[in-house]
Amino acid sequence: MEKKIDHIGIAVRDMESSINFYVNVLGGTLIDRYVSEAVGVESEVTILEVNGDRIELLAPTNNHTSPIARFIKQKGKGVHHIAYRVENLDTALVELEQQGIRVLAETLRTNKHGRRLIYLNPADTEGTIIEYCDYPDVT
Amino acid sequence: MEKKIDHIGIAVRDMESSINFYVNVLGGTLIDRYVSEAVGVESEVTILEVNGDRIELLAPTNNHTSPIARFIKQKGKGVHHIAYRVENLDTALVELEQQGIRVLAETLRTNKHGRRLIYLNPADTEGTIIEYCDYPDVT
Repeated sequence: MEKKIDHIGIAVRDMESSINFYVNVLGGTLIDRYVSEAVGVESEVTILEVNGDRIELLAPTNNHTSPIARFIKQKGKGVHHIAYRVENLDTALVELEQQGIRVLAETLRTNKHGRRLIYLNPADTEGTIIEYCDYPDVT
Repeated sequence: MEKKIDHIGIAVRDMESSINFYVNVLGGTLIDRYVSEAVGVESEVTILEVNGDRIELLAPTNNHTSPIARFIKQKGKGVHHIAYRVENLDTALVELEQQGIRVLAETLRTNKHGRRLIYLNPADTEGTIIEYCDYPDVT
């Protein structure tokens, strides 16, 4: 099944300063900005587009429970995940199982934009957090 | 000046296993593979294309002096930098100075594919290593 980069997720602390950088230095356009208190997110989320490529900025809203806060504590600010869009996430999950690639089952969720997503286990991707996603209701 | 993502640079340890993942799981195509002993690189480099997007895998060849080895020690394996292509790197450097964004001057170099590149100072990008690059001899 074809995979195509959907967006790059970036862990930040200072959302205003990050938006300023992506808009005024890289020339990006603000698409959306909201707070997600979903378990496993707990972050302020800003979606931008830079010349056709989508960037998702994530700033933790809870310094104790947000996985983005944990990521920043362990690795510092910077790229958190690369998301690949697939045609059908259910079929992609079967394919991953056949390929021996594990997923982080607890990350499976649908976000506010109707994007269904799951993270692959970084132990099976040489360290990078790879997201697979689809948009089942977007035609 | 317009900026467009040129490639994503990823720090890895096991190059064979990484290539296997990007080719067999993500469906990528191998473009080039070589060793760069340039100061500030000292890595095995593999270029792949996944559905039109370019991925640069970097595996340190010297565990003491390679900045990729240092990155992995500090932050773990994963995304190392996001590269944005600009039309003209010299003009882009003037623009950055006007914007108050510092660069890591020692990273300025031309790689084997004729790509001129420089890293922005992560202190001015909210943590992400951002590369600016151009291809002055590619028309």
